[in-house]
Amino acid sequence: MKAGIIGATGYAGAEITRILSAHSKIKELFLGSSSFKGEDFASIYPNFYKTLNAKLETPELVIEKSDVVFGALPNGLAEPFARACVERGIPFIDMSADFRFDEDGATYEAWYGKPYSEPELHKNSVYGLCELNRERLRASPRIIGNPGCYPTCASLGAWPALAKAIAAAGEKIIIDAASGVTGGGREPQRSFHFPECNDSFSAYKTGSHRHTPEIARNFRVMEGKAREIIFTPHLAPMNRGILSTIYIPLKSGCGLSAVDINCVRPPSNAVKEKEREFRELYAEFYAKERFVRVLPPGLCAATNRVRGSNYCDISIHLDQSGSTLIVLAAIDNMVKGAAGQAVQNMNIVFGFNESEALNYQPALF
Amino acid sequence: MKAGIIGATGYAGAEITRILSAHSKIKELFLGSSSFKGEDFASIYPNFYKTLNAKLETPELVIEKSDVVFGALPNGLAEPFARACVERGIPFIDMSADFRFDEDGATYEAWYGKPYSEPELHKNSVYGLCELNRERLRASPRIIGNPGCYPTCASLGAWPALAKAIAAAGEKIIIDAASGVTGGGREPQRSFHFPECNDSFSAYKTGSHRHTPEIARNFRVMEGKAREIIFTPHLAPMNRGILSTIYIPLKSGCGLSAVDINCVRPPSNAVKEKEREFRELYAEFYAKERFVRVLPPGLCAATNRVRGSNYCDISIHLDQSGSTLIVLAAIDNMVKGAAGQAVQNMNIVFGFNESEALNYQPALF
Amino acid sequence: MKAGIIGATGYAGAEITRILSAHSKIKELFLGSSSFKGEDFASIYPNFYKTLNAKLETPELVIEKSDVVFGALPNGLAEPFARACVERGIPFIDMSADFRFDEDGATYEAWYGKPYSEPELHKNSVYGLCELNRERLRASPRIIGNPGCYPTCASLGAWPALAKAIAAAGEKIIIDAASGVTGGGREPQRSFHFPECNDSFSAYKTGSHRHTPEIARNFRVMEGKAREIIFTPHLAPMNRGILSTIYIPLKSGCGLSAVDINCVRPPSNAVKEKEREFRELYAEFYAKERFVRVLPPGLCAATNRVRGSNYCDISIHLDQSGSTLIVLAAIDNMVKGAAGQAVQNMNIVFGFNESEALNYQPALF
Amino acid sequence: MKAGIIGATGYAGAEITRILSAHSKIKELFLGSSSFKGEDFASIYPNFYKTLNAKLETPELVIEKSDVVFGALPNGLAEPFARACVERGIPFIDMSADFRFDEDGATYEAWYGKPYSEPELHKNSVYGLCELNRERLRASPRIIGNPGCYPTCASLGAWPALAKAIAAAGEKIIIDAASGVTGGGREPQRSFHFPECNDSFSAYKTGSHRHTPEIARNFRVMEGKAREIIFTPHLAPMNRGILSTIYIPLKSGCGLSAVDINCVRPPSNAVKEKEREFRELYAEFYAKERFVRVLPPGLCAATNRVRGSNYCDISIHLDQSGSTLIVLAAIDNMVKGAAGQAVQNMNIVFGFNESEALNYQPALF
Repeated sequence: MKAGIIGATGYAGAEITRILSAHSKIKELFLGSSSFKGEDFASIYPNFYKTLNAKLETPELVIEKSDVVFGALPNGLAEPFARACVERGIPFIDMSADFRFDEDGATYEAWYGKPYSEPELHKNSVYGLCELNRERLRASPRIIGNPGCYPTCASLGAWPALAKAIAAAGEKIIIDAASGVTGGGREPQRSFHFPECNDSFSAYKTGSHRHTPEIARNFRVMEGKAREIIFTPHLAPMNRGILSTIYIPLKSGCGLSAVDINCVRPPSNAVKEKEREFRELYAEFYAKERFVRVLPPGLCAATNRVRGSNYCDISIHLDQSGSTLIVLAAIDNMVKGAAGQAVQNMNIVFGFNESEALNYQPALF
Repeated sequence: MKAGIIGATGYAGAEITRILSAHSKIKELFLGSSSFKGEDFASIYPNFYKTLNAKLETPELVIEKSDVVFGALPNGLAEPFARACVERGIPFIDMSADFRFDEDGATYEAWYGKPYSEPELHKNSVYGLCELNRERLRASPRIIGNPGCYPTCASLGAWPALAKAIAAAGEKIIIDAASGVTGGGREPQRSFHFPECNDSFSAYKTGSHRHTPEIARNFRVMEGKAREIIFTPHLAPMNRGILSTIYIPLKSGCGLSAVDINCVRPPSNAVKEKEREFRELYAEFYAKERFVRVLPPGLCAATNRVRGSNYCDISIHLDQSGSTLIVLAAIDNMVKGAAGQAVQNMNIVFGFNESEALNYQPALF
Repeated sequence: MKAGIIGATGYAGAEITRILSAHSKIKELFLGSSSFKGEDFASIYPNFYKTLNAKLETPELVIEKSDVVFGALPNGLAEPFARACVERGIPFIDMSADFRFDEDGATYEAWYGKPYSEPELHKNSVYGLCELNRERLRASPRIIGNPGCYPTCASLGAWPALAKAIAAAGEKIIIDAASGVTGGGREPQRSFHFPECNDSFSAYKTGSHRHTPEIARNFRVMEGKAREIIFTPHLAPMNRGILSTIYIPLKSGCGLSAVDINCVRPPSNAVKEKEREFRELYAEFYAKERFVRVLPPGLCAATNRVRGSNYCDISIHLDQSGSTLIVLAAIDNMVKGAAGQAVQNMNIVFGFNESEALNYQPALF
Repeated sequence: MKAGIIGATGYAGAEITRILSAHSKIKELFLGSSSFKGEDFASIYPNFYKTLNAKLETPELVIEKSDVVFGALPNGLAEPFARACVERGIPFIDMSADFRFDEDGATYEAWYGKPYSEPELHKNSVYGLCELNRERLRASPRIIGNPGCYPTCASLGAWPALAKAIAAAGEKIIIDAASGVTGGGREPQRSFHFPECNDSFSAYKTGSHRHTPEIARNFRVMEGKAREIIFTPHLAPMNRGILSTIYIPLKSGCGLSAVDINCVRPPSNAVKEKEREFRELYAEFYAKERFVRVLPPGLCAATNRVRGSNYCDISIHLDQSGSTLIVLAAIDNMVKGAAGQAVQNMNIVFGFNESEALNYQPALF
């Protein structure tokens, strides 16, 4: 099979190129870039020198020669390429935000500043959070909107709690997350200039990050009703990884009410015991998922244990009163949060082994 | 004046040595260490080579020769030295947890595993969060319990909101915080082994960190009543700094109720306007504080802007519905979170200029 | 085939476990550890949780069940295990220094403080620098001494120059190298404590590092005669990678003598032209090597372009007078510098595809 | 006294602003910037928020109001400002390369691509390597060319060896150096984009860095005759610091000739003894220098021990044959390598205490 990547020179494009170059079903790769047309890919990414021999081509040519096309462009540019793929009858897996909102063009426009140009394209697109929409993906949709990095992490972290309806009605869920700097993309800018992020930790876009509506939508789908959320992204001085700390207030009867309002003592055994129950709920929920690992007691999720891999690691905790569930979820933002999940989507759509090219065992260090 | 430091070879001890070596009122420094007695301080910290000529002495000798003594020992060891200072009639400023709980030995014992040996020592000790207890510190207490790093950051971040009683009754305040690795001290251990923290982000002691009761107590004092909190510490791959993200649910009538449950659009102007009001409330509250900087709109607090300094930077945000206040507070965990605040305490107790030796202008990079 | 790893809980052991877990010819893995016998490997390396289900066993049991054994122990412990493998008739690939000096027990003893206990074992061992000794490795030796990380990098960097006899007789070759912190192993110690290596660069063991005699020996073999070297290792604040900067004074007639003793101007075109010749010499020399990449003009070797992979990247430069060749060579110290090369050795010894399990495409970021 | 800084928004300008804001003799600071004229300095560097209240002004206005002016502009722009200062009769301390070459406009032009526009300005300028030219600086020159970061570090490291004429005639001295990323300045660019320098080590401009002629010139002045050098800069993933590893071949009779060509054993005691002699030579040479620390045996220079300070730490080593001196020199590239030395120059020129505002004690972590 032949795969094409449009926008191959960005970080997500380069990462999907890297993953696909080891995919047993992909025999040829076509790399598209308007800006670097005609250049060797390895002249831009010398880590591919001698291992990937490919010239950058126009997106049009890439689409023409491919059996599946990945979009790795900035937001707002995907529709024409999606259209072209639909016309050629091949799947288009888009890594921008353009196909993440299904038919809800209003939300997309409010947050991304641009209306849908071709609303009909969005009627049959599928949101590619693999674990959530596997069945719809198996039905071979023509357009797949690959999820954002933060929404992937937050949604996998909250899903079992939402699906099991254990959250208190009417209360907000808080997602406090930290990301590595690759999340900011390849274009140099002050915020990602080495001396200004190295050895520092900060929040950004507090209360107004564009991934907020996508998380809210996923939660709504998962719980079956709308719920307010708060999402606060942070920037950590590392290359890859997202850690989400998710605070889920439990509904009465579900957690404990061991209120020790003055924190007179550490969490009781009852809290530890209750924690175990929620861990089991999660473990069972994800028992058949190849890429979700619910960690045993004593471990907190950490980004280095998933670095480079398609895993989402989840650890389960309770606050000291036993009434708020604290879920930690860790992914590699470039893999499960972008290119890896895109390949997982392709594997599902084409009926390949879902983990093909995604078996990388993370290394810790 | 002559100052002594007991436990000078730990990170907090070395940092206070560094700060005091530039203090205009301190003419002599005595450094105490049981383990390294007789060694040159600069043989342990070669960064002091040729600039500080001091031999490590027994704690007893240090106390005997000093006009003020700083304790920089592990938790659980401070009482005998406090006793000795009290007997000599000189102030003892303790950087361990041993004098942070006033007379509440029960909470201390439950969290630190050890009862007070000399409860009477705790009757007149003062908790040294300078901005909060300045008046009591001016009354020249003999024992000062220097606050923990996380409690300093969280408490300064929440104080105006608590004092102004704008938080919703009965709701939890969440403190989600990330610290640099110096917070783990000088002793090598796996969790702080370079290859296992570099380029990674993780949570630890979720729901059970020992700073929880200290934060809860401070909040209670500040608000005038007890309130449940959740405190989640994280480890960031950097040397210094704590960033706390504090979620304060606002009481009705205080914030907005611009609920956009599906996050259909970015925060409205009304939210931005309300945000400005809270920022002003904070700015006014801290108007006279030399070391607290409430940041202007558009800035999120970041650890690199306070690195090496005694500042606490605070930025004020609202969630998109305008009903939860999100406060970001940043400090250098080794300075305002430990040694700097200890010196600030000394300055207050002795009536020196409060910023003496603490005027370091942070460098950003 | 079944593979065993002795000392599986160290970094090199964990890395070889990781690589072998994706090796198509290895059907079973046995992990040996005296200290952690009986424990789950994933309890020590949680990055393997749910993906590698293996209990640590005694080394003896591991040897008994395996068709090939990898030694990943500290220096000085390998001989008995080598003996046991020889007796069972299976290859032992040792990653310590114990089998790197062939029959030269005197040098080994002088640098590692311990004589050979069983000199006869060293008679038929082969030094496993794959590119150098491929033919001898194909003859199925029973014991392979896997090279040190620095010697691998320096030797591959210098080999073409040495083999082509272009270095000035009687002059020293200087190898100035920087390594990531994983090179120091898994045991926490002050030098590798995060706060004391982060954001810092230093040299260590200047003039006396144990890899010096191994490099000198390799150079002697490669050039056909002994030559003085200077080797200076440095520690860089990163996890993985070695960059060697190798200064090779050229013999008369071989380089240029464009001496501009006052550096009045930048290197001339003649120097650039000469540089190109040496680059071609190197490219030709390594034309058939899968894992050595001689970089095109304009690129300097960098560790991030080989991170996680078995590549050795080499770039070729000249000083401004054209009379000293400056070779930059970069490897991942844990892969080509340790576990990857050990697997490459196994692949050669057993006649597998030499790059089996070593096809990882590095990611740059 | 009033000080002005032209180009205050670059890293060197911001650093000198930071240092001068604590200088007891400087009562007022004027900050110049053509690009940001009229803006608050703290809006560009929020680390100065509430601590430095200054608006950026035109360079012309800054010069008009100041008693001393610091140039912190990109290379090639300093002459007109130098001219203006000369005309006003105030000293101009330039941190660009424009006044580092005295009257040698030819070398400057060859390396920086631009001839001197006003050669006469260069007749009386003084190269501000403080330790070398202190006497000439005391004579109150009007123009001071502040040295480059690498040349400062390399020159202080090599000076005693050069002055004592212990280097072998006709042999090259090699300077292999690594710098932190602040050396690349404030403008974001790919090479300094966080994800592409983090966790990586590389060389750059091998054989052709512009600091080469400046180092060669300094060595010539120090030794009294010209000598070939090789200078190879590297980029380390850290904010601040330069470590130079300097290889100085010793002339016959000066070092040892304990050649152990096969490195059969570690360096002998004779080598250690000889090393001690050179260390003493260095210590004596720099005995009166406040900012140069020759380290005791057992220590290798490291950048974290000088971070933030004006120190140059030097450690002395020999290769195993005792015939090449290996000097390690460490500075903070932004302080002793730029802004700190500029202030030191001002202190000397005006007869202030040379360490005024430069007493910062580095912190190790």
